[in-house]
Amino acid sequence: MNLKQLAELLGLSQTTVSRALNGYPEVGQATRERILKAAEETGYRPNAAARRLATGRAGSIGLVMPAAPDYYADIHFAEFLSGLGEEAARQDFHFVLMPKKPGEEEDALRWLAASGSVDGVYLAYMQENDPRIPLMHSLDMPFLIHGRSIGVAEDYPFLDVDNEAAFRDATHLLLELGHRRLALLNGPDGLDFTIRRRKGVEAALSAKGLVLDPAQVHHTAMTDEFGFRGMRQLLEQETPPTAVLCASTVLALGAIRAVNQAGLRLGRDISLIAHDDVLPLLKPEDFSVPLTTTRSSLRAAGVRIGQRLIDRIKGVETGPEQELWKAELIVRSSTGAAPR
Amino acid sequence: MNLKQLAELLGLSQTTVSRALNGYPEVGQATRERILKAAEETGYRPNAAARRLATGRAGSIGLVMPAAPDYYADIHFAEFLSGLGEEAARQDFHFVLMPKKPGEEEDALRWLAASGSVDGVYLAYMQENDPRIPLMHSLDMPFLIHGRSIGVAEDYPFLDVDNEAAFRDATHLLLELGHRRLALLNGPDGLDFTIRRRKGVEAALSAKGLVLDPAQVHHTAMTDEFGFRGMRQLLEQETPPTAVLCASTVLALGAIRAVNQAGLRLGRDISLIAHDDVLPLLKPEDFSVPLTTTRSSLRAAGVRIGQRLIDRIKGVETGPEQELWKAELIVRSSTGAAPR
Repeated sequence: MNLKQLAELLGLSQTTVSRALNGYPEVGQATRERILKAAEETGYRPNAAARRLATGRAGSIGLVMPAAPDYYADIHFAEFLSGLGEEAARQDFHFVLMPKKPGEEEDALRWLAASGSVDGVYLAYMQENDPRIPLMHSLDMPFLIHGRSIGVAEDYPFLDVDNEAAFRDATHLLLELGHRRLALLNGPDGLDFTIRRRKGVEAALSAKGLVLDPAQVHHTAMTDEFGFRGMRQLLEQETPPTAVLCASTVLALGAIRAVNQAGLRLGRDISLIAHDDVLPLLKPEDFSVPLTTTRSSLRAAGVRIGQRLIDRIKGVETGPEQELWKAELIVRSSTGAAPR
Repeated sequence: MNLKQLAELLGLSQTTVSRALNGYPEVGQATRERILKAAEETGYRPNAAARRLATGRAGSIGLVMPAAPDYYADIHFAEFLSGLGEEAARQDFHFVLMPKKPGEEEDALRWLAASGSVDGVYLAYMQENDPRIPLMHSLDMPFLIHGRSIGVAEDYPFLDVDNEAAFRDATHLLLELGHRRLALLNGPDGLDFTIRRRKGVEAALSAKGLVLDPAQVHHTAMTDEFGFRGMRQLLEQETPPTAVLCASTVLALGAIRAVNQAGLRLGRDISLIAHDDVLPLLKPEDFSVPLTTTRSSLRAAGVRIGQRLIDRIKGVETGPEQELWKAELIVRSSTGAAPR
């Protein structure tokens, strides 16, 4: 049974049948139900290529992937992409992926829009005042942003985790445990989520009349190596911090190696809280001292962004444009009372 | 300076200038050199879209990405893709990436070839007697395979690591150290590299008149969780192995957690060798007991496959079609003499 045969059986045009099966809004409810029922009874599975020919849509999401000789494979990006891919496969969408060096993203987005090869674009790694948001508004193509951009006044559709609240809550816990000398192993400087996490730490400290010493904040790529080096530097200071917040469990992996090498006991001599993107490779409960974390699944964000972006492409998104997820604070053994 | 202006300056057609700058063979050497010199002197940087219009080539590599709700983000895939992306960005190629469930790969490849949206295809995760090789031969589109397929008689272009030799050498080292009860935590059953690694272990054992007990071989996804469970099962046996080979440092991460929980000392009570894909996240020298490994960089393979596939697309590949890399055996502290 192909699309043509199914349309003939129903006495409808191929375009109508295809639109109904793909969930586009132009087809009335009664007709849609009749078509879905017939498709089910005949075991019809729409062919992706035929579907695209019938609808004139590529079924395609465009995205820009960071790429450079010094750019590390990013397990965070891979985990997000596997969620986005799960939803894209379910809805028979594919990706057009542009590997680009930093600074070339805007050209890549213009090309994606001009090429006609994609129906919508996913954007991430937002910076402060990110120029890609006004650019996307000018390109007249559906888009959805993972994250936000501090300083951009106009509205735009996004899904973000409340990074500021997550790190404020985490810092609050450390203050309650008596810690006063805090440090932050943060992500790359200038990224929106990095800025918001630092603001969260500052807000909690400020409520106690404290300030975050800039010397106790490191901005690096979120790799195990930078976690190790960052923590080693922090511990080499004359009065090292008693508690450290890490922007990723990957940074924490290296940081904890430095803690062990310094002969300190995690959760007793020094406390640590990491942000957990729920990477299957690095479960915080499996660390030899289980980690206290702020948790929000990157994979779930990928699935949700896939659903919303495809809905936007089809013109059927009904929910709010702006979605903010709360991270959970999960207390395990890597946090304890401040040493006296 | 745009393409049109550069062509006018040289008194040549835009097509000729564009072809020369993109390395296509139709342009004579003297003309090419004249064009490259002028491009350099005028600071001309070709615009990707203009380039594609002039050459009629999309500048695009197609690939199929495994995707399913139960499919883990694969750090191995991400690391490979970052190498492929590095080379694609350098040569201004993009990817068309089809997220597909297992069993849908052939349809996805047919669609990629029919859509005209890609110039060539990259294939991986080869199985024994993989049907995608005859399919690709029938599709008349440049392709390159990462890995090989045991049982396929016809020739095909590939880049592979000599997995059999790597695991034969590793097993040989363990035998020299006096180990006789060996186990293998291998990758998923039926994959070509998994089969070749097992054959490598069997070949080394066979040279000593020994056989690999099927009960001592586990086939799983290469995650930390399966490494942990696999090693725990091995250690719960009445006479557990004294040495274990792991198909990835990710499996080793979990396996070593099980070794530690059993109160065994790595490199003394039990030896372990892992295959190291040079994942920046998991450096074998950074494990608390540094790991003995067979090493071959997935990222370097990505870069090399990008170069070769783009050369094939341009019709300028000159080297051999089949490239086999040797893995290095690097001895660190996780291997030691068999306990008496």
